[in-house]
Amino acid sequence: MAEDLQGKNIAIVATDGVERIELEEPRGALRGAGAQTQVLSTHPGEIQARQFDMESASTIAVDRVVADASVDDYDALLLPGGTVNPDKLRMDSDAMGFIKAFVASGKPIAAICHGPWTLVEADAVRGRRMTSWPSVRTDLRNAGAEVVDEEVVIDGQFTTSRSPADLPAFCPAIIEQFAKAPQAAVR
Amino acid sequence: MAEDLQGKNIAIVATDGVERIELEEPRGALRGAGAQTQVLSTHPGEIQARQFDMESASTIAVDRVVADASVDDYDALLLPGGTVNPDKLRMDSDAMGFIKAFVASGKPIAAICHGPWTLVEADAVRGRRMTSWPSVRTDLRNAGAEVVDEEVVIDGQFTTSRSPADLPAFCPAIIEQFAKAPQAAVR
Repeated sequence: MAEDLQGKNIAIVATDGVERIELEEPRGALRGAGAQTQVLSTHPGEIQARQFDMESASTIAVDRVVADASVDDYDALLLPGGTVNPDKLRMDSDAMGFIKAFVASGKPIAAICHGPWTLVEADAVRGRRMTSWPSVRTDLRNAGAEVVDEEVVIDGQFTTSRSPADLPAFCPAIIEQFAKAPQAAVR
Repeated sequence: MAEDLQGKNIAIVATDGVERIELEEPRGALRGAGAQTQVLSTHPGEIQARQFDMESASTIAVDRVVADASVDDYDALLLPGGTVNPDKLRMDSDAMGFIKAFVASGKPIAAICHGPWTLVEADAVRGRRMTSWPSVRTDLRNAGAEVVDEEVVIDGQFTTSRSPADLPAFCPAIIEQFAKAPQAAVR
């Protein structure tokens, strides 16, 4: 298991308002399976993290500004939740350009909780079977997704989960899905 | 002008994460025009307010739990923004029941910034000309609204604005629209 993601480079796109555990626990699992990870954000420095959306949960270091990143450098993409995080990403043309290019690449994308909101913005969910935090489901449906209430849903390149309570199922599922990705052509 | 809303009772539906100025400034304007106002929320006590979504802005007192409120008691409805506020309201069956009943009543409804998200949840925006904070516009469009980028948009019972910067235009517009409402039948 620990060797599954050796040589893989995973992008984590997030910004202020990210739900801390939805970034850190999957990142830990990916690293534990041998992957390298980078937090890509809308600005350099640190992003403000949250717990249950409303409680401050300190900061998370940004590894690279998303405007400077290329999809070619990564094998898979992780989209954590936190309500304000995707709300801000949806309005950032660099973040949305990166996410849209990732969708077009066909490489694996995992999104948890409010994470799928950026996939709605990217018009990437049409005809896809997905789950999310309950508040996002009307928007997913209106964007053409088939929404289900399951702990992990895999459809093509997308793996989705509902909330931090699903992390014990989400983490092994994304390791398995990300392991199937061909290694990035350029580093 | 100060007498425009004499005898009118305005419901303000909001919960934790509300953008403080989008509740307080319109509330002040409505009171200044002679209206009575009540903050209806998902829980009693106080709700946590925010500035620019990420900064704590103390608390706002709840006047009544929305589960105990009837649309018959109010002449008009104000929906402030703040990203987390409508995100939570969308999942609350009492809040959504009240908002849906308000839509069905035909009485005036004003929503600013992220406020229109609950109207998406209520499936109330189909065919309506509306505006909102930029991040909400894809969801409004996918729900059938005609989205425009103007400081105040009035269509039927709905008055919408984009952000706190629009408050100088939003406040007089809602006073004018709410003044047209027939007084509530029951108090």
